[in-house]
Amino acid sequence: MPRLSVEQLRELARRALVHAGANATMASTTADALVYADARGLASHGVTRVAQYAAHLLNGRADGKAEPRMVASRGGAALISAGSGLAYPACALAVSEAIARAREFGVALVSVTDSHHYGVAAFHLVPVGGAGMVGLALSNSPAAMPVAGGKRPLLGTNPIAAVFPREHGFPLVIDMSLSEVARGKLMMAAKDGSPIPHGWALDADGNPTTDARAGLDGSMLAMGGTKGAMLALMVELLVTSLAGAALGFEASSFFVDEGNRPRIGQAFLVIDPGALAGRSVYDERIETLVAAMTAEAGVRLPGERREALAQKAIAEGIEISKQLHEQLIALAG
Amino acid sequence: MPRLSVEQLRELARRALVHAGANATMASTTADALVYADARGLASHGVTRVAQYAAHLLNGRADGKAEPRMVASRGGAALISAGSGLAYPACALAVSEAIARAREFGVALVSVTDSHHYGVAAFHLVPVGGAGMVGLALSNSPAAMPVAGGKRPLLGTNPIAAVFPREHGFPLVIDMSLSEVARGKLMMAAKDGSPIPHGWALDADGNPTTDARAGLDGSMLAMGGTKGAMLALMVELLVTSLAGAALGFEASSFFVDEGNRPRIGQAFLVIDPGALAGRSVYDERIETLVAAMTAEAGVRLPGERREALAQKAIAEGIEISKQLHEQLIALAG
Repeated sequence: MPRLSVEQLRELARRALVHAGANATMASTTADALVYADARGLASHGVTRVAQYAAHLLNGRADGKAEPRMVASRGGAALISAGSGLAYPACALAVSEAIARAREFGVALVSVTDSHHYGVAAFHLVPVGGAGMVGLALSNSPAAMPVAGGKRPLLGTNPIAAVFPREHGFPLVIDMSLSEVARGKLMMAAKDGSPIPHGWALDADGNPTTDARAGLDGSMLAMGGTKGAMLALMVELLVTSLAGAALGFEASSFFVDEGNRPRIGQAFLVIDPGALAGRSVYDERIETLVAAMTAEAGVRLPGERREALAQKAIAEGIEISKQLHEQLIALAG
Repeated sequence: MPRLSVEQLRELARRALVHAGANATMASTTADALVYADARGLASHGVTRVAQYAAHLLNGRADGKAEPRMVASRGGAALISAGSGLAYPACALAVSEAIARAREFGVALVSVTDSHHYGVAAFHLVPVGGAGMVGLALSNSPAAMPVAGGKRPLLGTNPIAAVFPREHGFPLVIDMSLSEVARGKLMMAAKDGSPIPHGWALDADGNPTTDARAGLDGSMLAMGGTKGAMLALMVELLVTSLAGAALGFEASSFFVDEGNRPRIGQAFLVIDPGALAGRSVYDERIETLVAAMTAEAGVRLPGERREALAQKAIAEGIEISKQLHEQLIALAG
């Protein structure tokens, strides 16, 4: 399999996005995010997405000319419109606004509307950790899961992340979607013809199923049953109602080339520890919990494994399949 | 069973707390919160807690003379110390500060430190919904659950809530702890001698168990497995590190009379929809999702059932056991 340096892979993705009509900033921030994922072992959100994004740009599902702009602002709060471009430039603006506002007002919430797939949630929080602040990233996504008690997809899998910087070393990074498993696991089971456990999916009629194909035609289930569905609803409400963004069931799937502009929403919450108990108290509390966690065999700090993979990728490059490499070269024109 | 009016039950709880040494405000806000729970069918967080709170006040685990005070403030952010009193007056101050600050700065985060049991999380958000704002309430609690991959209790069950007001009718209210089940379910199974499902608890050695008694000696498990444990960690970090509050494993159980001052933390996030896409956009988005949810048979709006119970309790009173009634009368002196 071809092995490319992080920079080579990034450049290939960037050129492919420009070729599909993305403006310079959009192509550049998007390529950054995709390579961030590949470097951390999250290939499903890496450069495999370039073809999908390119198709959306070419079909008008995403506007390559869009530039994010601020449409509302008060103190620590602001609303950014992504203008139906790819999500990354708008998310970058939102995060940079949120950091500046948290510095001034202690806490900031900056929402994004008219947006698109934001990829690995934790990517957006890198500057927040770098600024020594605590951050949360929230997004909805095209409907894939029912609400509690429901039978048809209404909510996205709603990926979220949190960052807690440490005085020394890498920040603690929590990052997950709120589905029990990723859709990819159903795809693999469907390919193998193997059954899936109860609790992963419902069939198209809304009944529990152990048939992966039936699950793919139906809906994914939230992690943690009713409680998880309630958490997914909470995220859906937070990112759509305040931003005026599309609900999951109003957005066409990211996995089809044709469809509407998803217009989904994101929200970034940033808090400056200096505005509350102060940075030294913050550091002491974090390290006390870290010490208790690492005293137990088998416990890994959140984000630790991905950070190690990223270091390795920077040093050794990233392997991608020959097929993907050729696809990217073709897309880059 | 004796049936008391909401007001009678509240007055009995209030007098018992005063008798145990709580100052007037502490007794009054605490009684409000306990009766809020009983009226909503949440007896485990209702006036059954009066005896526990009274014991903590009498044993010095909670300081009845404490008055909440603001110890840090910047823009939308503030930190309140509960001064090791019962949590309710400090939480009320935090929420009222957060509403005022969200009005001015769009978003507010007010944390509470040196705190105690905050009961039903949603109680604290009633004024937030009343002010037409979106709110989140977060708390940690004495350690009951392991972190992901761990074998011993490090994290609280970390009850959280969210409120989303509606233009007409009752707000949407999401309210849950992050354990798979409440400890009470293990207690019932232990009493009956019936087994518990895998995924509820670990024994004292950190091994999965279906023995309820072994589970009670060990740890509760988070809802949703690893993802739920990560969410509980996120809440634990948010409410302790910014506030300088005690971690779950530093706090003695609420269920014992002797022990330390728990000094745990809470955080209240309040957002004014008017600072982002605006109230009319907010209302339209909420009602669009509500309409999609209620179009499905079997789907209940979050908070709906509890609100109906509360209306019934206001009209018809609340039944408590003869034993509890006598206990409250004795505690009221």
